[in-house]
Order: sequence, then C-alpha cells, then structure tokens
Amino acid sequence: MTRPSKRRPDELRPVTLERNVARYAEGSCLVSFGNTKVLCTASLEERGPPWLRGSGRGWVTAEYSMLPRATHERTRREVTSGKPSGRTQEIQRLIGRSLRAVTNLPALGERQVTIDCDVIQADGGTRTASITGAWIALRDCFAWMQARSIISVDPLRDHVAAVSCGIHQGSPVLDLDYAEDSAAETDANFVMTGSGGIVEVQGTAEGKPFSQEELLAMLALAKGGIADLVALQKAAIAP
Amino acid sequence: MTRPSKRRPDELRPVTLERNVARYAEGSCLVSFGNTKVLCTASLEERGPPWLRGSGRGWVTAEYSMLPRATHERTRREVTSGKPSGRTQEIQRLIGRSLRAVTNLPALGERQVTIDCDVIQADGGTRTASITGAWIALRDCFAWMQARSIISVDPLRDHVAAVSCGIHQGSPVLDLDYAEDSAAETDANFVMTGSGGIVEVQGTAEGKPFSQEELLAMLALAKGGIADLVALQKAAIAP
Amino acid sequence: MTRPSKRRPDELRPVTLERNVARYAEGSCLVSFGNTKVLCTASLEERGPPWLRGSGRGWVTAEYSMLPRATHERTRREVTSGKPSGRTQEIQRLIGRSLRAVTNLPALGERQVTIDCDVIQADGGTRTASITGAWIALRDCFAWMQARSIISVDPLRDHVAAVSCGIHQGSPVLDLDYAEDSAAETDANFVMTGSGGIVEVQGTAEGKPFSQEELLAMLALAKGGIADLVALQKAAIAP
Amino acid sequence: MTRPSKRRPDELRPVTLERNVARYAEGSCLVSFGNTKVLCTASLEERGPPWLRGSGRGWVTAEYSMLPRATHERTRREVTSGKPSGRTQEIQRLIGRSLRAVTNLPALGERQVTIDCDVIQADGGTRTASITGAWIALRDCFAWMQARSIISVDPLRDHVAAVSCGIHQGSPVLDLDYAEDSAAETDANFVMTGSGGIVEVQGTAEGKPFSQEELLAMLALAKGGIADLVALQKAAIAP
Amino acid sequence: MTRPSKRRPDELRPVTLERNVARYAEGSCLVSFGNTKVLCTASLEERGPPWLRGSGRGWVTAEYSMLPRATHERTRREVTSGKPSGRTQEIQRLIGRSLRAVTNLPALGERQVTIDCDVIQADGGTRTASITGAWIALRDCFAWMQARSIISVDPLRDHVAAVSCGIHQGSPVLDLDYAEDSAAETDANFVMTGSGGIVEVQGTAEGKPFSQEELLAMLALAKGGIADLVALQKAAIAP
Amino acid sequence: MTRPSKRRPDELRPVTLERNVARYAEGSCLVSFGNTKVLCTASLEERGPPWLRGSGRGWVTAEYSMLPRATHERTRREVTSGKPSGRTQEIQRLIGRSLRAVTNLPALGERQVTIDCDVIQADGGTRTASITGAWIALRDCFAWMQARSIISVDPLRDHVAAVSCGIHQGSPVLDLDYAEDSAAETDANFVMTGSGGIVEVQGTAEGKPFSQEELLAMLALAKGGIADLVALQKAAIAP
Repeated sequence: MTRPSKRRPDELRPVTLERNVARYAEGSCLVSFGNTKVLCTASLEERGPPWLRGSGRGWVTAEYSMLPRATHERTRREVTSGKPSGRTQEIQRLIGRSLRAVTNLPALGERQVTIDCDVIQADGGTRTASITGAWIALRDCFAWMQARSIISVDPLRDHVAAVSCGIHQGSPVLDLDYAEDSAAETDANFVMTGSGGIVEVQGTAEGKPFSQEELLAMLALAKGGIADLVALQKAAIAP
Repeated sequence: MTRPSKRRPDELRPVTLERNVARYAEGSCLVSFGNTKVLCTASLEERGPPWLRGSGRGWVTAEYSMLPRATHERTRREVTSGKPSGRTQEIQRLIGRSLRAVTNLPALGERQVTIDCDVIQADGGTRTASITGAWIALRDCFAWMQARSIISVDPLRDHVAAVSCGIHQGSPVLDLDYAEDSAAETDANFVMTGSGGIVEVQGTAEGKPFSQEELLAMLALAKGGIADLVALQKAAIAP
Repeated sequence: MTRPSKRRPDELRPVTLERNVARYAEGSCLVSFGNTKVLCTASLEERGPPWLRGSGRGWVTAEYSMLPRATHERTRREVTSGKPSGRTQEIQRLIGRSLRAVTNLPALGERQVTIDCDVIQADGGTRTASITGAWIALRDCFAWMQARSIISVDPLRDHVAAVSCGIHQGSPVLDLDYAEDSAAETDANFVMTGSGGIVEVQGTAEGKPFSQEELLAMLALAKGGIADLVALQKAAIAP
Repeated sequence: MTRPSKRRPDELRPVTLERNVARYAEGSCLVSFGNTKVLCTASLEERGPPWLRGSGRGWVTAEYSMLPRATHERTRREVTSGKPSGRTQEIQRLIGRSLRAVTNLPALGERQVTIDCDVIQADGGTRTASITGAWIALRDCFAWMQARSIISVDPLRDHVAAVSCGIHQGSPVLDLDYAEDSAAETDANFVMTGSGGIVEVQGTAEGKPFSQEELLAMLALAKGGIADLVALQKAAIAP
Repeated sequence: MTRPSKRRPDELRPVTLERNVARYAEGSCLVSFGNTKVLCTASLEERGPPWLRGSGRGWVTAEYSMLPRATHERTRREVTSGKPSGRTQEIQRLIGRSLRAVTNLPALGERQVTIDCDVIQADGGTRTASITGAWIALRDCFAWMQARSIISVDPLRDHVAAVSCGIHQGSPVLDLDYAEDSAAETDANFVMTGSGGIVEVQGTAEGKPFSQEELLAMLALAKGGIADLVALQKAAIAP
Repeated sequence: MTRPSKRRPDELRPVTLERNVARYAEGSCLVSFGNTKVLCTASLEERGPPWLRGSGRGWVTAEYSMLPRATHERTRREVTSGKPSGRTQEIQRLIGRSLRAVTNLPALGERQVTIDCDVIQADGGTRTASITGAWIALRDCFAWMQARSIISVDPLRDHVAAVSCGIHQGSPVLDLDYAEDSAAETDANFVMTGSGGIVEVQGTAEGKPFSQEELLAMLALAKGGIADLVALQKAAIAP
C-alpha cells in the first residue's frame, strides 16, 4: 500500500510553527501541517466571564473558524446561518479542554485567555494543527504576561500537541491529509502531553467498526508523531 | 475503594428496556440505567432530506434533548437560547453515527428514520443510555416497516450499545452515575457492536492526563458492560 | 349523535393524576386525560427575574413543550426554528395566568416557581390537562417549601382546573379528544377555580359563528367537568 | 361609579373609519377608537403560501405591530429581539381568524390577502380596533378585485367587528381605554359578526375570578357595542 | 429632457412638516416630500446605554423602518427575518450621525434621545425626508426638556436637512422620486447644516461612473434644495 | 503639521499586492496598505442566486469579515451575535457595488463570483484595501475562467481601486492609518476606476461639518492615490 502523499505510515507532513505573526496579539503562531494552515492568536482579557469572579482561578477558551475559501469548494460563512455549526463547537471545545489540561488555572489569576484558531487553508487535520499551534500562542501570551509581571509563575505545566491517525486501505497511518481522510475507514484524533499522558482520544468508525488491535496501532503511531511535534514546539520557542 | 453506589468496579446499574411506550411512534423504548431515564422514539419519514434524493439509500439521524427538570437544578430550555448547545449537538451526532454504523442504508431505501432521545431524568450516562435504547426503537421501526412490506430485508446488521467508564479515585470503573461522573478524573464513552467491533471511543482527561494502561483497563470494562447490554437488548426483543 | 369515543356529551375521559414522578423536582405530576399525557414539574428558584426584586411578592410562570413524537406525525422541535411558536407562547401564558389566579403571590416571598408542562403524548386537550396537573405540582412544591419552613403559610388560595368543550355535529360536548377536536365547529377552553369562579374563557368558532345559547351550554358542561376534576385533585392529595 | 373618561358603561369611544389612506394598498383604513389609532392595509398576493397550492381556496392572514412611540413609554422594536413577542403573535392570529370567519375562502381563489395592522397610537383596545378596521380594508380589497374581474363574487359573507369589555370597580363597562384597562379586574374581548354570531370570546380574570353573571353582562354590552360598530362600517362603505 | 414629474431640475417636491402628531412623544413630526411620508418621533430616555455612564454627555440615536405596505409591492416585515437589513442599518446610522453633527452632546447630559423614523408611504427619498423631519422632532424634544428645566441650554447648534440628487438621462436633478430613482445612473445623498457645512456626502454610480463635474453639479443643486428645506424648518417652528 | 506616520499629506502607505496566496481559490490576493492586511479570494459558483436564473447575466458579490484579533483589542466574532453588524453589511455592499461597476455582467454568464475579504490585520483603511485587492482576485478569477474557455471575453471593463482621505488637524491627508483615522475630523472614502471615473464617494463629518473646498481637496488627493494604486495593480498582473 502507498499513501496518496507517498509518505511512510508513520510520517508526519512537513510541519512549521511561525511565531509572532499577529502584530496586536499577546501571543500568536501560524502553524502548517503540509497544506493545512492555521493562524492561532492568544488574547488576554483582564475581565473573564462572570462565573470566574471570586473563583481565584483563570480560564483558557478557544474559538475556531474557517475562512470561506480555505476549502476546495467555498464554504458558507457561519454568520449567515446564525450560529456555529455542531462541528465548529465540537472542535472549539476540544481545543479549549486540551489547553486547560496543561494549564495551572489558579496561577493565571482571574483572567481569561482566548485562543482564536482561524483556518487559512484546510487540507485535513485542522483541529490537530490548531491544538499544536495554539500551545505556542498560549505559551507566548504567558511569557508576555510574565515579562510585564502580570503573573509571577508560568501557568503552563507541560506541552500539549495533537495528531490524527486513521485506518487507510486496512493499514494504520499517521497525520491524514484531506485525500486520505475522505477515504479512511476509521479516523482518530489523539491529544497528548509532552510527558506522554493522554488528554483526549476520539476514534470513530466511518464505515465498519474497528478492532482493539487497530486502536492500539493508531495509538502507537500517535505517540511517535506527538513526540515529534513536541520537539518542534521546543525548537520553535528555543531562545 | 468503594463506589458511591456500592457497585463493583465492573457492575452496571440496573438496566431496563421497556418497548412500545409511545402510542404513535413506529418504534419506541423507555430505557433506564439506574435513575437515568430516556424515552427513545423512532419516526419514519418517507421524505428524507433533499440530498438523499437519487442517492438510492436512506438515512438515520438523531435528536437529543433534556426535559428542564430532568436534572437536580432546573436547566433552561434550549428553545429560549435559540439554538441547541454544543453539548446537545455533539451528543445527537454521536447517537446518529452509532446507529448508522450498524444500518445497511441502501436496504432502507430513500427514507429517513429520526430517533428522538428525550431525557426524562438524568443521573449520568444519558448519551450511552440513549444509544442503547435507540437501537431498540430503531429495530422496532424496521420490524414495523417489514410487517407492512415497506422494506423486504432488515437493514440492521448488528446490535449497537454504549457505556461510559471512568477513572474514579485512581481505579477504572464501569457505568458512572452523576456522583461518580462529577468526581472522575477521566471520563470515557465506548460504543461497540454486538460482535465486539468498536464504533466510537471518546476519552477525556478532566484533570490530569491518563495513561495507555488506564485506557486499556477502561476498554476491557466497556467490553464486558456492552456484552451485558447487548444480552439485555436480545432479551427485550425476544418473542 | 354519538361521539367517536362513545362517551356521553358530559363525560370526561378517564383522568389520572400521578404525583412525585420526577425525582429532582420540588413537586411533580403526570396527568392523563385519556391518551393525552403531560408531565408537570414545579421548580423553585430562589432568584426570580430581576423585576421581582424589591416587590415583596413572588411569581409563578409556566413553560410548555411537546415531545416531537407525542403526535401522530412527528413534529419538528422548536429549538430548530429558533423560537417558541405562537401557539406554544399562547399556551404557556395561559397556564401561568391560571395558576397565578389562585396564588397569593406576596405569601410566596420574592421567589419564582416555574412549572414545566411537557407533553409526552397528545390526543387533544393538552393545555387543559396541563393546567389541571400543574396545580398538583405547584401544590406539592408549596408543601415542600412549608415542610422546610421556607414559607409559613400556604400561598394557594383555591384549586384551579381546566377543560375544553366544543360544538360537535351541532351538539355541545365535554373534553374533546383529537378526533372530535379536528371536527368540531367551535372549540372553547374554560379555566375555573374550586369555588366555581371563572379564570379564563376562550371560545373560538372554527367555521361558522356560535350563538349565546351554545356558549352557555358549553359553560354548563365545563362547570360540571371542572367540579369532577377538582374532586380528583382533592383525592390525589388526600393524605 | 364614574369611568375615568366620564363615559356611560355602555358607551363606545368616538370611532372613525377613514378609507383609502394608503396610496399603494388594495384596501386600507385608518381606524380610531378614541386615542387609539391603527392603520390597516390589505395586500393581495397572487402567490400565497406553498400549502395553498392545489387546495382550491384562498387565505387571509394578518400581521400586527406597534410603532415604538405609539405608547406612553417608548417600546423596543421587536426586530431587535429577533422575533414577535407572544402577545404580538396572539393578536395577529386573532385578527386572522376573525376575518377568515366571515370570508368564503374558496371564492377568493388560490390567493392570499395579508392585512397589516400597524398601531400608530395606543390607548387600549388596539386589537379590537384592528379587527374593526381590518374588515374595511379587506372589503375594499375585495371590491378592488371584483372591479378588475379577478374574482366574480364577493368572498365576504358578513361584517365582523370587535370590542373589549371589563369589570371596572365592580361594574361591567364597554370599550376600555388604557386607564381603565390597567385598573380592570377582568378584561374580555368579543368578536362578533353583523348577524350577531360569536366568532371569539376571550375573558381573563386579572385578579380575582369572575362569575357567570359578569360574563353575561359583558356579553350583553359587547353585543350592543358591536352592533354600533357594524353600523359605522356600513356607513363608511356606503356609496 | 423632462422629468417624469414635470418638475424643473432644481425643484423640490411639495414638502410639508406637521408637528405634534404623536400624543405621547416628547417631539414629533410628520414629514412629506411629495408622496413620501415619514412619521418622526423623539423619545427621551433618562437612562441611556451603559457606555454613556460617567461620560458627562448624552447621545442621539435613530431607528428607521418601513410599514409593510408603504411600498408598491408589500415588503416583508424585518421582524420575520430576525434582523434589520443592511439597508435599514445603513439608513439609521446615517440619520443618527446627521443629528449628532448639530447636537452639543454634553449640553444634553447623560441622557439618550431616540428618533424613530417610520415610513408610512414610500416614493423615493425616505432617508432624506427622515433626516429633515427628525430635526423638527429633536428640536421639539429639546424645547420640551427646556420647558421642564431638564436642560438649561438648547443642545442644538444648527439646523440639519438632507436631499437626494441624481444624474437622470444625463442631467443632474434634485430630489428624486421613485420613478426617477429607479432610472437614475447616479444617486447621491447630501446632508448639510443651516450654515452650509457638509455633514455627509454619499454618491454612488448605479451604472457607469460619474465625473467630478457631475459631482459638483449635484452638490450645487443640493445646496439650493437644503437651503429651501431649512427655510421650511424655520417656518414650521416659528411661534 | 506632521502626520503620526511622518508621511507627506499625499503619500500612500507602502502597498503590496501578492497574488495566488490561496491554493483552492480561482483568484486570490493578499493586499497590504502598511500594517493593514486583507486576504481577498474569488470563488466561482456555477449556480448563482435564484433571481439570476433566466436573466442572462452574472453577479459579483462580496463578503467581509475581520479575524477577532486583527485589532488592538480582540473583537467578538459576529457568529456569536447571530448576524453581521451594520458596519460589516455596509462594507460588503460597498465592495460588491464597486466591483460590479467595472464588470460586464452579461459577459460573465449566469454565474456568480463571490469575493471574500478577510482582514488579517487592521490598521485603518480595511475597506479601501479590500476593494483594491479584490480587483486582483476578481481579475485572476476571470483569467482562470478564460483559460478554461468558461467565458470567451474578459468581463472586466476597467480597473477599480479605493483610498481614504481625511481632514487631520485641519489639513487634507491621504490614506489614513488607525491613529489618524481615530483623530480625523472628517473621513472620506473614494472609489474610482482606472480611467478616473468616480464610482463612490462617501464623506462623513465626525465632528464639525466640512466645506466644499475641503471636499475638493480630498477628491484631488484621492485621484492621485488611486492612480498610484492602479499602477500597482497593473504591475502586479504584468506577465
């Protein structure tokens, strides 16, 4: 079996993490997983949501959107339909949960950081690229806050990154692009920390159910891929 | 460690599946997992959505809602907020995908079956109870259609059922009720077929990340629980 | 003339009032008028709407909804249309007004009780069944509050119940089911107190106008029917 | 007892019905009941709603709105709240039903007439003034259609008009203005035809319930008032 | 070239400004530019929007709407579409800006005046008629406030009025009616003060672009027309 | 007087027009006016809006949006508010009109091209940058269509570009950035064609009214600036 992209089963697409791309944001990262490109920005809001008041801790939330022509066919803007789609809400909840899993919320104080993930170009894996890039934006936002003595300790406890896996023509493969994703029998997303803990596993059989063995094979691929992504995050923030 | 409900780690709550509870529906089931009660109805619509036309196949979709006072504190009706919440949409997409995974859609013809899952009382596990009860409602709808010669073969290929697992005070446990769910460090939902195939795995770390061993322990518990649920489904539809 | 249900013109359908059906609500009642079944729950909210503050009195409000497959044909959920329909709003305003007519609002204190009437199955008369069952839920909520010394006197001043009447094939009849309601020339709803006072009269000519005599004949039927319903309420709450 | 307006209990406010006030409408009437002023226009639409097609009959529908400063305090436009309020929907359904009760819908053909009732100034009784004026607008629309041979027979079967009554300081009074309406213990609206048939009765106890005698006294007042209104309609359309 | 209305190129339609037409408003004016009729009311709100608090100045805002049958064909109410159209928002922002340009906002105190412009009949130029009439309503509202010593100095600094111009069959013309507006190659709206200052210029080529000469010719026509409108405003408020 | 940016009064910011930046769009351009950056894409849709059918001509429309963190303070996504703001609608209507003014719509056939202008970074002049960049995207889309023989002649009749002017500290200046725009007394946007025709003029006094002389001075600056922008467009598309 050959992958449409000629990659090895355990091979990521070329990944880049470009920092400081948004002039006004407290942290930002343009992440690309091959042709998938997502602009991630972190915005500090001194006034978080009302339910935060008096709680002694902060909050990290995420919003996700796709530019209409990020896709092969133009997608209708969600503003016209009056509400984010179920898919959009599912993704932004996933990004938020993933980042909070490695954030020491009390150390942030009663503030909110909003991560915006805007997909400039979509070729599969937009949610996993978003999480991976969002971590950089959040990290730079925290550095910005520390530099201004808004917080005294770094609220980040660990790296977090994400990658997709799938069963393509019967074989487990890493980091699906759009062509593979459309054809995959099973599609799974993994979110893990720098120390290898699992934050989220989401596996879905598109057609026929998958076996425990297939789940474990995908998990093994994801571990390797996420270790590579964390290494790239480390390189990106190296002084 | 003892569970708040005194159950063994691998013990389901008492499960009942009561058929034919809705006078007008083509199939219906009142499912209870302990104090969680969900009314599932199946509605046949000869006219499916427009994109079905000419496709030669049918569709199974699901809607999910909670009565306002299904919960300890009254929940605001979603009609007032103008749209289903992200959580609601996530759950109804999951129920629909799970049922379609065991349905031969071409055998259904260009028709749609809508499964409504309305939570009458909520004590944790409403989505897993919904899937388990929805299968009965769908099965009875297909039987109703066969009895009227609307379809000639049964479009159902297998059973499907679902159960939650979690890591509670460091130990993996099966079928969390609300008390356990609120306190669990990790929460996972599993959807599997009668023959043991995995349709969906969704594991989320609420606090600290979980390990591969914990994932496997939960998967083992889920297998056992789902086998029990499938046996209960078989008993419920036995002539 | 014979009624489709073979009932006498002044005969109610079998009515049941089952209390304490919702584990978490402060008061609840599953009411059935024949095949019409409505789950009524009362929810105490210590914090009422903002305009209540400083007024020295409480409020009783109602919300009404129908499960999608309560009806012969599946009804679209209102959440999808973004707002409650005119009919829904009309009914929930009627239920609220009817209950407030027998409630001593200052005795309730600055609190709100919300009555949810969720139609599980609909065979005509859902609004009159809702009012009749809602009174039980409200009464049990007030008893719950008295038992916990939240209020010292019972805010209920009287019973309230409701019934429909109609002109069917030229004759006045009591408590229309769906078959009669669809065919009735005139449809009227009456809400009265235990002591026979009129709280609400709503009479509508569906086809040709009706006469004063017909209005009086329907009023007489309603009086008798409501007296029976009040007797059933009394029996239901008897110790 | 004296009424705030010094009127006798059975005395209408000065009523005017001015025809042809809207240059582009097929029929129009500016109706005033004292200081209450409503602009009613009838718009013929050759293409009615989809469900009319093939039915062989027409439809008359109504929309109702209030200018923001028709009232003592400015009222927020409903466009900002995204939907007509329950009260608005209740009123426009009432106007539509009242007009259809005297319209021969098959004689109209598969067309729709929309009656717009826009309240220019509100001093109580806006719905009853709307119905009374709307009849003129509809009648002139039908005359316009007959003059152009769009229809051959007049679809109107009778006059229809409406008036409110109330129990004010213990006495039944006719045609409440805002001052009386705010203080009334009971408020009732009556819609009747030219030949005295009842189309709609809506009586509501605002505070304490009312008796059958009070209902009959209000009905008697309404009969007299509506007879006067019908006489004014006849005068208004006299050649 | 002759204009459809036989007017000279620099001739306004007959303009009337009728004051005190709304019983409850603090200021009001029914303005007509030929067959275009707009009811303008001014409503004083002691509590302005939250962002006004502590600013030491007031605000003047405007809302604009058209009655459904103000137009040749009935227009759908915006309440049904859930939001004001782009055109409506554009117009109400223009009216508000124009009035604020001649208002001394600090002299108004922390209060808001809302101007409602409701088009009763539309024959072109509804936004320019609205601005011209709104000035009268605002002026009378300020007089009402001064008479009650709510404010001590008149916040109005100058008159403001507006008129449209267009290039019709190659020639510049003043104050387009609907027939001319539909056929014009270029359409421009001018808002000017009593002392001749320009508040707003909006020129749009409907078909082919226009030249600087044409812009200047329209500006000259507008100056003359607005001077006439200001003279009419002065006459209307003369004691 | 010195401008905050030290530019001469008639000096544009550095302008770049980068083509082919969106992999899937039929035409695209990343335009920057200094720190203002807008991604413009053109999407061909074979199926235009229903009202186009049978008209024999095409349509060009535009949508405009800002990424939440394009601005100094994060801006709330419009999807959350359920509708595009008045400002957004005003801008997208302006972009659409400007492009249609130079497009031969019948030559396009019954097709629609949608131009999406998504502001990546905002430092004043986003609407003028959008129009200038959108022309490139539209031009490349038409070239793409010609290359595939979808159309035989180029529907573009001329260039179109836009620039803002303002009165800053009493002097007319060209191409305002955010710092100048916030402080300007008058703000005007000009849209002109390559041959110097005026497509749109929008001048607004933010504080005190402006004079005819000031309007002419701004017009002169705009002419020069737009000539420069058209030259840059020509260079960008040169082979």
